[in-house]
Amino acid sequence: MKPLLTEIRKKPLLWLLAFVPVVFVASRLAPEAETLLFALSVLAIVPLAALLSHATESVSAKTGDAAGGLLNATLGNLTELVIALAALRAGQYMLVKASIAGAIVANTLFMLGASFLLGGLKHHVQEFNKAGARLQASLLFLATVALLVPSAIAGADSPEVAAITGPLSVGLAILLIATYGLGLLFSLKTHREFFASAGHGGAGAEAPWPMGLALATLAGVTLLVALVSEIFVESVQGAALQMGMTPAFVGFVVVALVGGAAEMASAFSGARKNRLDLSVGIALGSAAQIALFVAPVLVLVSYVLGPAPMGLQFWPGAVLMMLVATMTATTLTSGGRSTWFVGTLLLMVYAVFAMTLYLLPPRMQ
Amino acid sequence: MKPLLTEIRKKPLLWLLAFVPVVFVASRLAPEAETLLFALSVLAIVPLAALLSHATESVSAKTGDAAGGLLNATLGNLTELVIALAALRAGQYMLVKASIAGAIVANTLFMLGASFLLGGLKHHVQEFNKAGARLQASLLFLATVALLVPSAIAGADSPEVAAITGPLSVGLAILLIATYGLGLLFSLKTHREFFASAGHGGAGAEAPWPMGLALATLAGVTLLVALVSEIFVESVQGAALQMGMTPAFVGFVVVALVGGAAEMASAFSGARKNRLDLSVGIALGSAAQIALFVAPVLVLVSYVLGPAPMGLQFWPGAVLMMLVATMTATTLTSGGRSTWFVGTLLLMVYAVFAMTLYLLPPRMQ
Amino acid sequence: MKPLLTEIRKKPLLWLLAFVPVVFVASRLAPEAETLLFALSVLAIVPLAALLSHATESVSAKTGDAAGGLLNATLGNLTELVIALAALRAGQYMLVKASIAGAIVANTLFMLGASFLLGGLKHHVQEFNKAGARLQASLLFLATVALLVPSAIAGADSPEVAAITGPLSVGLAILLIATYGLGLLFSLKTHREFFASAGHGGAGAEAPWPMGLALATLAGVTLLVALVSEIFVESVQGAALQMGMTPAFVGFVVVALVGGAAEMASAFSGARKNRLDLSVGIALGSAAQIALFVAPVLVLVSYVLGPAPMGLQFWPGAVLMMLVATMTATTLTSGGRSTWFVGTLLLMVYAVFAMTLYLLPPRMQ
Repeated sequence: MKPLLTEIRKKPLLWLLAFVPVVFVASRLAPEAETLLFALSVLAIVPLAALLSHATESVSAKTGDAAGGLLNATLGNLTELVIALAALRAGQYMLVKASIAGAIVANTLFMLGASFLLGGLKHHVQEFNKAGARLQASLLFLATVALLVPSAIAGADSPEVAAITGPLSVGLAILLIATYGLGLLFSLKTHREFFASAGHGGAGAEAPWPMGLALATLAGVTLLVALVSEIFVESVQGAALQMGMTPAFVGFVVVALVGGAAEMASAFSGARKNRLDLSVGIALGSAAQIALFVAPVLVLVSYVLGPAPMGLQFWPGAVLMMLVATMTATTLTSGGRSTWFVGTLLLMVYAVFAMTLYLLPPRMQ
Repeated sequence: MKPLLTEIRKKPLLWLLAFVPVVFVASRLAPEAETLLFALSVLAIVPLAALLSHATESVSAKTGDAAGGLLNATLGNLTELVIALAALRAGQYMLVKASIAGAIVANTLFMLGASFLLGGLKHHVQEFNKAGARLQASLLFLATVALLVPSAIAGADSPEVAAITGPLSVGLAILLIATYGLGLLFSLKTHREFFASAGHGGAGAEAPWPMGLALATLAGVTLLVALVSEIFVESVQGAALQMGMTPAFVGFVVVALVGGAAEMASAFSGARKNRLDLSVGIALGSAAQIALFVAPVLVLVSYVLGPAPMGLQFWPGAVLMMLVATMTATTLTSGGRSTWFVGTLLLMVYAVFAMTLYLLPPRMQ
Repeated sequence: MKPLLTEIRKKPLLWLLAFVPVVFVASRLAPEAETLLFALSVLAIVPLAALLSHATESVSAKTGDAAGGLLNATLGNLTELVIALAALRAGQYMLVKASIAGAIVANTLFMLGASFLLGGLKHHVQEFNKAGARLQASLLFLATVALLVPSAIAGADSPEVAAITGPLSVGLAILLIATYGLGLLFSLKTHREFFASAGHGGAGAEAPWPMGLALATLAGVTLLVALVSEIFVESVQGAALQMGMTPAFVGFVVVALVGGAAEMASAFSGARKNRLDLSVGIALGSAAQIALFVAPVLVLVSYVLGPAPMGLQFWPGAVLMMLVATMTATTLTSGGRSTWFVGTLLLMVYAVFAMTLYLLPPRMQ
């Protein structure tokens, strides 16, 4: 337990853990105060996500390179997965999809853009490993194409189409997971030398915890995130209404930024330290993982856990945003160099999307 | 006055200035002869635009680097701005938007393509500064995304959507102008060394005029352009009908080529002299300026000058053309080298668009 | 005749020639057995296509560089052209278009992807000439834009639009053929040094046949392909129905793979021998040729041969697939290097499309 306590003492972000018991108590005492519960659960999830990410890295560091890389690649978005599972069980498929699309867009535009901007304000020009960025961008592009197809078909509103969305989504989900697996084989095994400088792993310099503590933290914190997520999912729609935000804005922007807060902290600190490989790896790697692993897993799991099977189709605006985000990130990272203005451009594209979603009437989404 | 007269004697293009008084007289004597007035006003605007561009460059050359760059960047498309303002005051929003979209497409496809072709016919392979092309192409891409969003929403024809188009357009206009400003800060101040060889300024070798003459010309010619533009805007629709051209073709192709005639002369002459940086800078820089500065300024000004606020939404075909033009220019300039065939490809894409607009029935536009 | 017989003895693929007489006999004896006739005609076309491609290369090799290159570039897709002409004469425009779109997508995704995968499994990293790939990709992009425009317009279902689809398609067809011609001038004449290592010609190492034999084979085999194609076109729809495949799947996937079987054999063998320039040249060059030469020629020929003029418009899904295929190939070949995983990604995109077409209800296509 000692390393855990030291960690908490050192990092002010973890002091937010105090909100974990508060949110449980509040949900008992005032189950109808949705805006309060929403705010408290957000404050509680952020430090839990940071702990989860540290525990995952500690386990990976101990289990060695290939197994560790695999673990990091599958559990790296555990917070997003747990939140989405809570929404899935509640049958809130709209929220699940908004948070998937939002996380992809937030990682490729906001996280990457803010990293470039923060790094660029300190360093004149920064360089990063193009090979890693190119692999993740290619994976993302494939995933966007796979999401585009069922969405384009679903546009035609007919019973025949409804009948094939299910099998098509399952088929595409299996293709995506297979591609993700082959991508890991490629980057961790057959061509690992291409990804050399990006391979420092997650938080890099920090000392890993002992194995027992790491595993216990992983299990315990995952459970806590799951419990808080339920409160979060129950309160988010009501809170959105009361705060005058549309549900799409909440799912797309708020949930995505909450779920990715811990990763963002790592990415930004890497950029300030001129270790941009780390930032680009976290931002694009995490987006690719959500598109090729988390989203298809949720589709397959919905057959077991959900009230009805969930398809891979998204509403047209979300597909457009994912496509534009992927294309923007691909184009702007292809040179392997960045400056503050590249970051500004990425953030501006994100601002265009966020502003539109904020203004859009609910019926349009 | 002497340098002005010398200039006029040296340049046959400026002899067209004789049409300026002719168009004013003709508009008094035969206000209903729309085709004649249209032709005369085109012939009068071309030399005025050339003078305006020379005067702007002279002022910039005198005021020094940073201020001069800023001036060039804001007044470089003064002709387009003045024509668009005349159309705006007349409430012809369709013409305003067609000329904006047309100017962006004409600059990225026609001006760039003809520069590459003309340069490539004389020189086997030509090189240019990639960094400048990349910055302008990135700015253009951002602007196209910003225009895509309200257009995609406006497709859904509902009163709720109409209500948000106004605030959304204003928000996006402010974002675009802010990005344009930050882009100037980047290219003129923090990272100016990247843009070194593209930084010769406008017409390069020509001797600048004295300050007083330059300022007087700037003021006087702007007034003349404004007056001729009114005749032009009033006659263009009738002339189009009589010549069997659709209004979209006139706005998109004819107005755009007229407004950009002076810049095209500079770009083509740069390409022939193997100073392709100059040509690429004028073509892409002018397109970016129209998208990120002229268009949003017109949206904001429409609240003051126009009969009703003008939004940023375009008809879907125009957005598609801007998107394709931007992507084509980005892809073909990414290598930093050009040959005659690259120019041919750009011109062919422009020909596809022009041919389609020429054939399209008016109701479809 | 002797080289021809030696060739047949050496290559097991050519033993399938035995199916040529079989398919003629079968079409007499059992004209209603559509699935059988379909299978037999597929088996007969594959070796004929291989012979045709060898004969074309022999003639090109004899006639010298420029003329030979031109011949290869115009007759390289003779099999696809002859099959499409048979479908055109039968008025099956849907099949013509599906096979054009399918051939473009199969070449850029399946043929290129499988070449990268097969080459990459044997060689760690493979390099190829970027200039050639870039030229073909640019040509393809232009063609996709030209196909996009009439398809976008045709979406609006009005009599006015129907009236302009004809002239627009003819105009675009002429533009595409002109661009294709200029592209040949560029790559074979003015800038041939750029395409040096890709210029080994088709099958490379094989010894060419004598001129007389090559010409006789060219004529005789073309006739045979034409005759078998008629049986193929007549039987394909019925066979598709009986095998539970949609017509779009058959045209897009089956016909495209059958027509390109011979080229695929060359491309794959080139990739295994680490001559990736050859594979990329065949795959992208053939796709560009179909888009810029075969498709527009078919449009023009439809005015003479077909029951009614055929336009250049495609159904939206086909345009989307061609656009995605072109963008994917452009992005993934821009680096000039390949590994097995790049091939996997291309194949996955192809699998997404094939799976969707297989599942899609016929009414949607």
